[in-house]
Amino acid sequence: MKHSTGSYYAVIFTSELNDNPEGYTEMAHKIEALAKQQKGFLGIDSAREKTGITISYWETLEDIKNWKTQSEHLIAQQLGKEKWYKKYTVRVCKVEREYGK
Amino acid sequence: MKHSTGSYYAVIFTSELNDNPEGYTEMAHKIEALAKQQKGFLGIDSAREKTGITISYWETLEDIKNWKTQSEHLIAQQLGKEKWYKKYTVRVCKVEREYGK
Repeated sequence: MKHSTGSYYAVIFTSELNDNPEGYTEMAHKIEALAKQQKGFLGIDSAREKTGITISYWETLEDIKNWKTQSEHLIAQQLGKEKWYKKYTVRVCKVEREYGK
Repeated sequence: MKHSTGSYYAVIFTSELNDNPEGYTEMAHKIEALAKQQKGFLGIDSAREKTGITISYWETLEDIKNWKTQSEHLIAQQLGKEKWYKKYTVRVCKVEREYGK
């Protein structure tokens, strides 16, 4: 993951898919590839079992807003929200501290 | 998930496991069960593929601090950080807004 010079933000996207989410995998890859080219993009983590979790990291709230507009446009073209997701939650968060190994 | 009356926090834990993380699954279940009993606990989301992601939600930073002390004590008893994790990152975040369906 790239490092932000100051504070940064995380967008937590949790979802449950419908039983037959046609076109979902292709679109998910496309969206991830596009996210990586956006201004302010720092990194992404994702995993799916019953619940899918994707966390993307961004330099500013403005970067997140721009990305939201773009990604929603893509998904809307595919009517994706209705087709793919049984439910989903988006949480925009400010990372206050981090540690690890 | 329980709803907080005001603002709330998310602890994002991402990790990669070692090849033979002996005792990990049992301990992960034990820790999740214990988290659910803590003051200020609101909910948890988790999924694992190559990367494991666990996000727990809490009412206050004080609740997170208390939980950190307790969970680290449990894990330390098992020497878990050395045995289980190739690497991990913990991010403490303030949830600024959320939406979904």
